[in-house]
Amino acid sequence: MHMVIDVHCHFTSPPAAMDTYRAGQIARGPHGPGFNAASLSDEAIADALGKRQLPAMDAKGISQAIFSPAAYSMGHHFGSETVVRNWTTASNDLIQRACALFPGRLIPSCQLPQSPGVPPERWLDELEFRVNSQGFVGCNINPDISGGVAPLTPSVADEWWYPLYAKLEELQVPAHFHASATQNPAFHFNGVNYTAWDHACAFDIMWAADRIFRDFPRLKLVITHGGGAFLLQYNRMRALFDKAGKDYDSVLRRVHWDMAVYEQETMQTMVKLVGVDSLVYSCEMCGTADVVDKRTGRKFDDTLPLVRALGLTAAEESKILVDNAKALFSRAFSSESFRTDGVTVA
Amino acid sequence: MHMVIDVHCHFTSPPAAMDTYRAGQIARGPHGPGFNAASLSDEAIADALGKRQLPAMDAKGISQAIFSPAAYSMGHHFGSETVVRNWTTASNDLIQRACALFPGRLIPSCQLPQSPGVPPERWLDELEFRVNSQGFVGCNINPDISGGVAPLTPSVADEWWYPLYAKLEELQVPAHFHASATQNPAFHFNGVNYTAWDHACAFDIMWAADRIFRDFPRLKLVITHGGGAFLLQYNRMRALFDKAGKDYDSVLRRVHWDMAVYEQETMQTMVKLVGVDSLVYSCEMCGTADVVDKRTGRKFDDTLPLVRALGLTAAEESKILVDNAKALFSRAFSSESFRTDGVTVA
Repeated sequence: MHMVIDVHCHFTSPPAAMDTYRAGQIARGPHGPGFNAASLSDEAIADALGKRQLPAMDAKGISQAIFSPAAYSMGHHFGSETVVRNWTTASNDLIQRACALFPGRLIPSCQLPQSPGVPPERWLDELEFRVNSQGFVGCNINPDISGGVAPLTPSVADEWWYPLYAKLEELQVPAHFHASATQNPAFHFNGVNYTAWDHACAFDIMWAADRIFRDFPRLKLVITHGGGAFLLQYNRMRALFDKAGKDYDSVLRRVHWDMAVYEQETMQTMVKLVGVDSLVYSCEMCGTADVVDKRTGRKFDDTLPLVRALGLTAAEESKILVDNAKALFSRAFSSESFRTDGVTVA
Repeated sequence: MHMVIDVHCHFTSPPAAMDTYRAGQIARGPHGPGFNAASLSDEAIADALGKRQLPAMDAKGISQAIFSPAAYSMGHHFGSETVVRNWTTASNDLIQRACALFPGRLIPSCQLPQSPGVPPERWLDELEFRVNSQGFVGCNINPDISGGVAPLTPSVADEWWYPLYAKLEELQVPAHFHASATQNPAFHFNGVNYTAWDHACAFDIMWAADRIFRDFPRLKLVITHGGGAFLLQYNRMRALFDKAGKDYDSVLRRVHWDMAVYEQETMQTMVKLVGVDSLVYSCEMCGTADVVDKRTGRKFDDTLPLVRALGLTAAEESKILVDNAKALFSRAFSSESFRTDGVTVA
């Protein structure tokens, strides 16, 4: 079997103890205790992984997965900064344990203690600890920390985010933009809210790409789920970019785009606009599209056959399925050694 | 020249007196005076229309346009209910005057006095007045009245909207969902916010279509700009709908979709998924895509050639360009007579 890396997988079937702790945070309020990760047995974690994640990887032909806490359950909007920190610790501890059990298959990526009104400077200790001490190779960033209510989060293009971007560049780990829960009653969480924020992140990063990548030339950012409608309604976007004197076509290659989309037309558009050098494969196991398509009898997220049918050369296909992911998550795959103070040495 | 109806045009080049009044609302506060529409001369209005709107229609080959106040300038979030009412009156008065000057070309559609926290019952007098007394044939509905801040607007599928839907059904005028300004610093107004809400309206109306159209079988709703990514990332949507026991494919035909999109692939997808009976042409003059595409030398919003190249039969093309719009905006085109109490009689 050829190697295939999925860059966007969440632990969507965690052990029940995680839900019990999370539910308890509502009752305990802003001063509750943290989560004792040692209370989880290896067996409980392995059982939970065996429910959906590992069988799905086997069934779909995925060799390795960048593995992070579930996006919808990050829920940065909920509770005080302490509540968020406790939950972030619990969630990242679980990922660390899971990946340690299956080191050849699951590669850890963390969430951060983003909390409404708390600036990025206060998230960095968690990022450094997970990367430098535990081998995490990436992080998920919620662009809408409060979940659509006040205080609204500055655009991901805003210099408010620069302390995070500086640290990401220093550590050479990518940030994967991914929204979580929303309080907006008109935004269905994974039917609307994710897509809206995928699009918003794509738009704002591209719109300010010249400044952002001048200030952080080695910053690695990943846009997810094809960027909402940003690539698909490309002429609407090109009209706006052209009018502002920006070059839509070239900025698309300043970031990586994951291919967690579920129809071949969208993949074709991504290949046409972005090119194979900036695309990374994902089917996002086990998430929104973990449903059997009655038309085909296959699961919607069984998308490797769609990539295989794109008409790419073997070298191009290898870029999307393996090579680009290895370069992006270089801490997992390169032969470089990393000093624990975060400075990369060749 | 064949007849072509554009169902989604805004007066984006209004006389300067409108801007002067609008700017003054900031200074005058919640108790300022209304706008005196009589202060606008016919010449000033005709001059304003001659700047962009009428030449664009001529250049693009559009015979008739459903003509409404500019979407971005509706700005329902701004000021008290009185401020919103004054601005709504001014905006609709301008549309009435403009359409009266060019009765064969411009057909009036109104905005409503939507104001944060004000229920739909309090918008209906404006709708009835414009439709019954002035011949307006549709209205634009802002699904995000407060512009992304508290109090957040209930989903357009929520029964909160039912008094409006009942009145729309009674009057037999369609509602065209279209967001306006947003306070969210991460949502560029016409690069992100419109698209996010196009998608949100599409998703929520489709998700609740069985209930909504059971309760209002003759309700006419229009989704704009292709519904964001709702039709384009269709397998993500199908996965969600399938899992919830809903039939994505059939609900798409319960509403109309305007074709204010700017690339042929998106149009093809709309034809494939929605079918020609539920699509209505628009290039949205003069809006976001009123920009020359350097690749083609044509304006992005010069989209009639794209429709002509879809490979449709003459009858299918006629549905999209003329027939469906006539049925949708039946008060403008049918030979029915309408009683001023809003009850349609054959």
